[in-house]
Amino acid sequence: MYAAIEAGGTKFVCAVSDHDFTIKDRKHIPTTTPQETLGAVFTFFDQYDIEAIGIGSFGPIDANPESAHYGYITTTPKLAWTNFDFLGAIRAHYPNTKTAFTTDVNVAAFGEFKLGAAQGKKNVAYYTVGTGIGMGYIHNGQIYMGRENPEAGHFLVRRHPDDHFVGACPYHQDCLEGMAAGPALEQRWGKKGKDIDPNSQAWEIEAYYLAQASMNTTLYLSPDIIVFGGGVSKQAQLFPLIRSQFAKILGDYVDVPPISDYIVPVGLGDDAGITGALLLAAEQ
Amino acid sequence: MYAAIEAGGTKFVCAVSDHDFTIKDRKHIPTTTPQETLGAVFTFFDQYDIEAIGIGSFGPIDANPESAHYGYITTTPKLAWTNFDFLGAIRAHYPNTKTAFTTDVNVAAFGEFKLGAAQGKKNVAYYTVGTGIGMGYIHNGQIYMGRENPEAGHFLVRRHPDDHFVGACPYHQDCLEGMAAGPALEQRWGKKGKDIDPNSQAWEIEAYYLAQASMNTTLYLSPDIIVFGGGVSKQAQLFPLIRSQFAKILGDYVDVPPISDYIVPVGLGDDAGITGALLLAAEQ
Ligand SMILES: Nc1ncnc2c1ncn2[C@@H]1O[C@H](COP(=O)(O)OP(=O)(O)O)[C@@H](O)[C@H]1O
Ligand SMILES: Nc1ncnc2c1ncn2[C@@H]1O[C@H](COP(=O)(O)OP(=O)(O)O)[C@@H](O)[C@H]1O
Ligand SMILES: [Zn+2]
Ligand SMILES: [Zn+2]
Repeated sequence: MYAAIEAGGTKFVCAVSDHDFTIKDRKHIPTTTPQETLGAVFTFFDQYDIEAIGIGSFGPIDANPESAHYGYITTTPKLAWTNFDFLGAIRAHYPNTKTAFTTDVNVAAFGEFKLGAAQGKKNVAYYTVGTGIGMGYIHNGQIYMGRENPEAGHFLVRRHPDDHFVGACPYHQDCLEGMAAGPALEQRWGKKGKDIDPNSQAWEIEAYYLAQASMNTTLYLSPDIIVFGGGVSKQAQLFPLIRSQFAKILGDYVDVPPISDYIVPVGLGDDAGITGALLLAAEQ
Repeated sequence: MYAAIEAGGTKFVCAVSDHDFTIKDRKHIPTTTPQETLGAVFTFFDQYDIEAIGIGSFGPIDANPESAHYGYITTTPKLAWTNFDFLGAIRAHYPNTKTAFTTDVNVAAFGEFKLGAAQGKKNVAYYTVGTGIGMGYIHNGQIYMGRENPEAGHFLVRRHPDDHFVGACPYHQDCLEGMAAGPALEQRWGKKGKDIDPNSQAWEIEAYYLAQASMNTTLYLSPDIIVFGGGVSKQAQLFPLIRSQFAKILGDYVDVPPISDYIVPVGLGDDAGITGALLLAAEQ
């Protein structure tokens, strides 16, 4: 069987599947200390005959196989996990099992590419818009990595003229994440994203920022498709707004695919990440 | 010998070299009509025994080898060249010669990667800041292409608070090119870039925009190095200003190489493009 871990800052999702990637069993484990959390992960996986393990982790992580600290979680503010050799711990417990290690957004991008909204495309940008904003990118069918992984959630947005929210990013204040992630919505409007009226101007402002993300993605990466997942993107009314803002700000400058096939919601829903991690396990 | 064409909107630069890439002969030919300009190009190259031709062209071009219009200049405002089969014309005249066809900025990026300021790096972003702003990118030693070539010169900048210039881009008005290319400098300050006092605030504002370009490049591509060439980047006082603005706006968010090795001026000067085209010819 294939095993997968989607390691988040709040919880770990573990799953096992057969070769058809249908999830056979899954478990949510709270993210406490590495020892406690991974202890529970091993207890879960030990029930199964595992061929390979795919891991998508919160970060920042060292995902460069040539690096001395490959497989580590590095400078996370979650202190128990700082400089923790995550992949090493997995390999120590399963020395004969193949592993794949990348970021949480990269596994989701890979899942969407193989089995989700981006099937048949070669170049796939995937954004999660949730507690934070992260992007994973598939280039020519492979997970893209430069010197490190992209961190496209933090570019400096152009402010919407009606938006006076100061911004919530501790590093940049009013970058994309600081203006458009779930906590920014909540702080700006005084209620959680899911409780904001679908007709509120909140969504037009949100779309203005996600349209800028789509524009920068188009200009820097020239993907075949841009997929949005994560809690905030569950607001389906966002998509027409993002598309029309995108068309407006990009102008006729570059040719893009038909817009409703180009900027799309996640196909696998909340399972994009865990499915991508299973798919990645299968490729090892 | 290797042959190279750097095809610009104003002039074509043609050159030939031996296998050591030292330019043996070169000719500048005005860009008029395809027939006239290419006629002069052929007259020049016909003097030599050419093994391969590398071409870096103004655009937009179709650089996708799988496309029906591969090798064409597509929607350029230079009407005589619109939908012109540039590569086809070269191949018709030199049917037994190998060819390589890409953008003007991609050949410059390739030149810097192989023989210029970015030697030894795997992931190289190259910006030209001249009449326009364009970016070429080398990823893992290869010219990067997604669905099409990146067009990173047109992202929406955040305005410098002291800058009230309306912006010069016909598509976006105050995008990067609209605010920071040579014509923007000239319109904003009423004189050509080379005549602006090196101590003028003009350069701090210019650096503010090029720092944003560096930040977006870092966040989307995570390169090993960012190289700036083109006429405007000849102002050497820009580099310390770009570096300090970059460090300030990026914050401590992601780790980058030592800044003076990361944001650098072009190593091959005005020959980056033509040298890159020769190098590309050699790889065919
Ligand atoms: N249906 C919804 N509409 C708008 N915002 C939502 C919705 N569901 C969750 N969110 C917001 O998304 C964020 C959580 O994102 P999520 O992708 O679910 O988890 P995480 O990013 O922590 O992995 C929270 O800020 C939450 O308020
Ligand atoms: N030394 C310089 N300092 C500032 N600006 C310059 C300098 N040299 C050229 N420029 C500006 O750069 C632009 C031309 O860019 P260049 O890279 O030389 O050619 P092109 O982009 O047309 O291939 C013009 O707008 C010009 O004013
Ligand atoms: Zn930020
Ligand atoms: Zn523009």
